[in-house]
Amino acid sequence: MTFSASMPHRVEWGDCDPADIVFYPNYFRWFDAASWNLFEVAGGGWDSLRRRFGPVCMPLLGAESQFRSPSRVADQLIIESRVVSWERKVFKVGHRVLNGGVVAVEGSETRCWAVHDQQNGNRMRGELLPGELIALFTGEANGR
Amino acid sequence: MTFSASMPHRVEWGDCDPADIVFYPNYFRWFDAASWNLFEVAGGGWDSLRRRFGPVCMPLLGAESQFRSPSRVADQLIIESRVVSWERKVFKVGHRVLNGGVVAVEGSETRCWAVHDQQNGNRMRGELLPGELIALFTGEANGR
Amino acid sequence: MTFSASMPHRVEWGDCDPADIVFYPNYFRWFDAASWNLFEVAGGGWDSLRRRFGPVCMPLLGAESQFRSPSRVADQLIIESRVVSWERKVFKVGHRVLNGGVVAVEGSETRCWAVHDQQNGNRMRGELLPGELIALFTGEANGR
Amino acid sequence: MTFSASMPHRVEWGDCDPADIVFYPNYFRWFDAASWNLFEVAGGGWDSLRRRFGPVCMPLLGAESQFRSPSRVADQLIIESRVVSWERKVFKVGHRVLNGGVVAVEGSETRCWAVHDQQNGNRMRGELLPGELIALFTGEANGR
Repeated sequence: MTFSASMPHRVEWGDCDPADIVFYPNYFRWFDAASWNLFEVAGGGWDSLRRRFGPVCMPLLGAESQFRSPSRVADQLIIESRVVSWERKVFKVGHRVLNGGVVAVEGSETRCWAVHDQQNGNRMRGELLPGELIALFTGEANGR
Repeated sequence: MTFSASMPHRVEWGDCDPADIVFYPNYFRWFDAASWNLFEVAGGGWDSLRRRFGPVCMPLLGAESQFRSPSRVADQLIIESRVVSWERKVFKVGHRVLNGGVVAVEGSETRCWAVHDQQNGNRMRGELLPGELIALFTGEANGR
Repeated sequence: MTFSASMPHRVEWGDCDPADIVFYPNYFRWFDAASWNLFEVAGGGWDSLRRRFGPVCMPLLGAESQFRSPSRVADQLIIESRVVSWERKVFKVGHRVLNGGVVAVEGSETRCWAVHDQQNGNRMRGELLPGELIALFTGEANGR
Repeated sequence: MTFSASMPHRVEWGDCDPADIVFYPNYFRWFDAASWNLFEVAGGGWDSLRRRFGPVCMPLLGAESQFRSPSRVADQLIIESRVVSWERKVFKVGHRVLNGGVVAVEGSETRCWAVHDQQNGNRMRGELLPGELIALFTGEANGR
């Protein structure tokens, strides 16, 4: 089992550029929102996640996307997201943007599991991914 | 004397919408940047301002703008900014956007002088505007 | 009767700034989207509006907003919008942003009713507001 | 020889998120602006490019980025860009974001060379990359 979540987005006028299509950095904005949403849905909300795991954050190490077909004003998009790999401190979230049932965009974000270190000017510090967290996404009692 | 500052901005492809003109919320983005820049220039940098005045912030109470003529990709804009009024805890920053010497946009932001209250979950709390701060903009030794 | 429409928006991580609250230009982005949505709902879609009224557009003449209380990540906002005045070629859209039932932000946009003039490099040209359009919002057979 | 261009960007308050660092989709906004700037500088302006090559456009096929270190409010960035590969209709632009002399971000965009097809609803259609265009970047008389 791999837990996934879907987030709708209607393409707005201000999302589009003079070529009448979505200005591509917006897809990464929606990827980011979709990743937060994925964890929120999996974990019963960020308040609950922070009570269990501390003042966590998930800074980006990398992101990539392929743009297969343009989307236009008023298109109804669905962003489907799931964690596609777990490493020690790092995980990858895969995203697919569906437009009218067709995959218009496909991409991923590589993120670090981190806490805000209050001893050190609130900087972010990478942490081992808790098995208990991973289990929320995989349904396996022991995480990996 | 009223201290003023200018900030250049070249209109980018991604600043424009399908009507081939600047998507208007971007002007407010540039107003915000111009206000931070105005204080930075007047005060010798935000580090210096924060050493003198504490962990200050300037949250918005209001903003308004008139859009006189559209700007387009590759236009070279100048945002001219100055504080146009000082009240007890509140001040107003006026902005003019020049495009080829013509005032394309005119607007203002009403902001509160505030500090982050660390006793209270880091919420912002309005503070009296220091005379010493106002003097940086008016050149008057006693502020008001 | 005055026709109104509501648009939900969940505050995303990327909507917020280092003060942990919504970066204010985003409210104008949502106002713009809410105005497009208002006309879409009133007119049975933009395709239908364009069939009846031509290649119309609604460029901004002005915008203003008061920010009464900050909104934060994961807050569920509702943007309520209606046309609050009709003039010859110009109309004003009023917006209220509700957060947990409280009016957090209140603002308006002043817009011109315009068509793209294909004889003139596709520039926008103001047009008289059609009574038939106004009737969609007021329910009065003769518009005003 | 490979032609390159540099574009400065000062990190603004509104570019940053509640973690006090640049919200990552903004890097892609700056990549896009840097690519337009690169072609403008190489070709003596977009007006000149369009006179020589028609109503061209350069839609995205893909984009990726690695984020090596965070940037913060008021950091002075330099985005360095060059075309790193030319194919038949497709080219890749490489970008490096320098912050205080250190490479903070590294990424690329894969773009198609396209014209707006006025016979076909102004849709974009991929075109062979002109040797004359490539020569502007490589300094070679015959392009490839």
